[in-house]
Amino acid sequence: MCTKTFSGLLLSGGVKMFKEFKDQEVQSMDIKLNTHFLDVKETYLFSDIAKRVRKFQEENPDREIIRMGIGDVTLPLPRSVTSAMEEAVKEMSAKDTFHGYPPEYGYDFLRNAISDHYKNLGVTVAPETVYVSDGAKSDLGNLPDVLGDNPIIIPDPVYPVYVDSNLMNGRKVSFVAGNKENDFLPLPPADTDIEPSVIYICSPNNPTGAVYSREGLTAWVDFALKTGSLIIFDAAYEAFITEDKPHTIYEIPGAGLCAVEVSSFSKFAGFTGVRCGWTIVPDSLESDGIKLSKFWARRQATKFNGVSYVTQKGAAASLSGQGLADCKANIAYYKRNAAALAEVFTEKDIYFTGGVNSPYIWLECPDNMGSWEFFDMLLNRFGIVGTPGEGFGENGAGYFRLTAFGSYENTLKACEFFKTL
Amino acid sequence: MCTKTFSGLLLSGGVKMFKEFKDQEVQSMDIKLNTHFLDVKETYLFSDIAKRVRKFQEENPDREIIRMGIGDVTLPLPRSVTSAMEEAVKEMSAKDTFHGYPPEYGYDFLRNAISDHYKNLGVTVAPETVYVSDGAKSDLGNLPDVLGDNPIIIPDPVYPVYVDSNLMNGRKVSFVAGNKENDFLPLPPADTDIEPSVIYICSPNNPTGAVYSREGLTAWVDFALKTGSLIIFDAAYEAFITEDKPHTIYEIPGAGLCAVEVSSFSKFAGFTGVRCGWTIVPDSLESDGIKLSKFWARRQATKFNGVSYVTQKGAAASLSGQGLADCKANIAYYKRNAAALAEVFTEKDIYFTGGVNSPYIWLECPDNMGSWEFFDMLLNRFGIVGTPGEGFGENGAGYFRLTAFGSYENTLKACEFFKTL
Repeated sequence: MCTKTFSGLLLSGGVKMFKEFKDQEVQSMDIKLNTHFLDVKETYLFSDIAKRVRKFQEENPDREIIRMGIGDVTLPLPRSVTSAMEEAVKEMSAKDTFHGYPPEYGYDFLRNAISDHYKNLGVTVAPETVYVSDGAKSDLGNLPDVLGDNPIIIPDPVYPVYVDSNLMNGRKVSFVAGNKENDFLPLPPADTDIEPSVIYICSPNNPTGAVYSREGLTAWVDFALKTGSLIIFDAAYEAFITEDKPHTIYEIPGAGLCAVEVSSFSKFAGFTGVRCGWTIVPDSLESDGIKLSKFWARRQATKFNGVSYVTQKGAAASLSGQGLADCKANIAYYKRNAAALAEVFTEKDIYFTGGVNSPYIWLECPDNMGSWEFFDMLLNRFGIVGTPGEGFGENGAGYFRLTAFGSYENTLKACEFFKTL
Repeated sequence: MCTKTFSGLLLSGGVKMFKEFKDQEVQSMDIKLNTHFLDVKETYLFSDIAKRVRKFQEENPDREIIRMGIGDVTLPLPRSVTSAMEEAVKEMSAKDTFHGYPPEYGYDFLRNAISDHYKNLGVTVAPETVYVSDGAKSDLGNLPDVLGDNPIIIPDPVYPVYVDSNLMNGRKVSFVAGNKENDFLPLPPADTDIEPSVIYICSPNNPTGAVYSREGLTAWVDFALKTGSLIIFDAAYEAFITEDKPHTIYEIPGAGLCAVEVSSFSKFAGFTGVRCGWTIVPDSLESDGIKLSKFWARRQATKFNGVSYVTQKGAAASLSGQGLADCKANIAYYKRNAAALAEVFTEKDIYFTGGVNSPYIWLECPDNMGSWEFFDMLLNRFGIVGTPGEGFGENGAGYFRLTAFGSYENTLKACEFFKTL
């Protein structure tokens, strides 16, 4: 404990802040913080990228930049979806149709629409097991709230939120390696004599675009069932699957006993700026006699207050009739970009995953270049911005992520450049 | 560990769920759950209320119900706000004006508008210290994520989220009693020789409607500064203050060294169904050399993905020009209801708090009735539904919350009934 004397104006970021504070001896704040936050590596990946791009632009004001770095959609929302949202906004402006607090787990119209979406995928998911949220990232970040101190198993490379949200809770994370040998689709360890664990699976994977086959996911589900583990399955990129691969973990027999599934409207319906996702917590999931759904329901009812009516109306529109057709057309646009990229790298005999059932292409940097070396080369030679693989885990070193979310025109320009590699 | 044999179809809620599962011996899930969740009392308050109202309606199909129980707004959003939201939806439907992922801590236009709101309250809050979210409840629920194992001090009665979100983290909660003697505005303990603690303050209070004076809040800030504690100040009902009382904790000198403030568009702009709030984390808050803002920023960037562009546009509209005037008119409507109720209870010489700077009236149940007894009496005699005080803590026993969010006509009807008490 230490005391400090603060006098005069408090300064913050160069501006005067708060009321003038009288000269007074005070105890500086001395509460305990959650220092597990210090275990989370600070990532400068995207700010590093931004810095290098800025420098390039300053030095080359006339050069065009082709952005293939960020995993954000670029096509506007279809009219079929925005019409529903406009209608919902209108309802909010009239007394008889105004909507106050939303139901904590989502409006029935949306829970039912999501349940129907699963029906179309060939599995039955009861609407009561669907928990609507403001996005998959929130749910993935918040699921550790309801879990105790279990070992965590995470593939590498992968979406960094899995690791970071567990480190923040002081959990021990171990990795299963994705690499060229397993085409970035790691299978479970052979040893099933392990403590019951929490296992993250992302398929189609961000960043590698790799998608598990039915056999691959079955191996994971069997492993979870044998070890008493829980699978957290991230299906955010499911809509990009066109080959015969599982769209949902619940296609795998037994998954209802060991898996929650997190998914999103972000990539399917272009909702990155609208914010809506969901998590499926089957009632059949229980440990030590306690239903996981009970804890998740309690967590959401206590620390969350539901999703905007306008957003939920838009989300429901994206799952039915014209909305569904329009969203599929947008996905097809991005997939054409991915296919064009995949074709070039196949021709050039550059190893890559993704590009087929995914908006991502994950390629091995040619000529044994490091990821950042390849980044600089692409930027300086072609004005192309991508993402160095290290940002997604140690096994990302020497690899590079390109996204198919740009325009077709720019993607073709990039393809021409890649042909000259 | 135990093994079970699951065969045939898995059943959930009476419906067929997931793919058919082959006969197979499996280990049932055996991960550790966060059993601190079991420490959270299950509350049946609102479902109990709903049950009694349903029964009453079945037995008295012709009787009118006057709902003064739920703290939800009923007036529609003003056109000035919905116009901005409609405009934003239109932007989302065109390629050149589409918005993808929002900035994690809010768009600058909204952070600046919130900073200006504080300027109007006479304090300077830098836009960089404003963290926009999907609502005060989320922020209040998530703030414990960044804190360690500190003692927690919470007034009783109060909004139950403070208690529950801390119990879920295994924290020890102690209470300071609100009661008739202190007009439900408890002051800090005299003993400042305590461990640095996390202190929750809600002013105007939910459920009591009581509002701290400058002196009262100064006592809490001084206590926090002397003990090295952190105040989490909930200002969700700030817009209802019309007397000369602090609208923000930052009116109190020194608060910038010991307080975060959580607030919301829910009650001010009728956003309960739109979902937008914010938290102020001053850069001057630090413990053991670590800035709290650093951890909160990290938490939000990892486990949250920003608020809908449409929502943020609506929120910004509510803080400027016509929007501000319209929202103030809605608040005035509710306040007229509260004033009408306050007048009756004053006339009847029934003790109450609130009703002036708050949409809530918190009254002592007359004739030493218990809260549920009073509830049943009001329902059966007058068809009035309120909330028994026990729902907000032990000190709520014998008290009752009425809300001013109904229509003026119904409020006047209720007033006539209350006159006959």
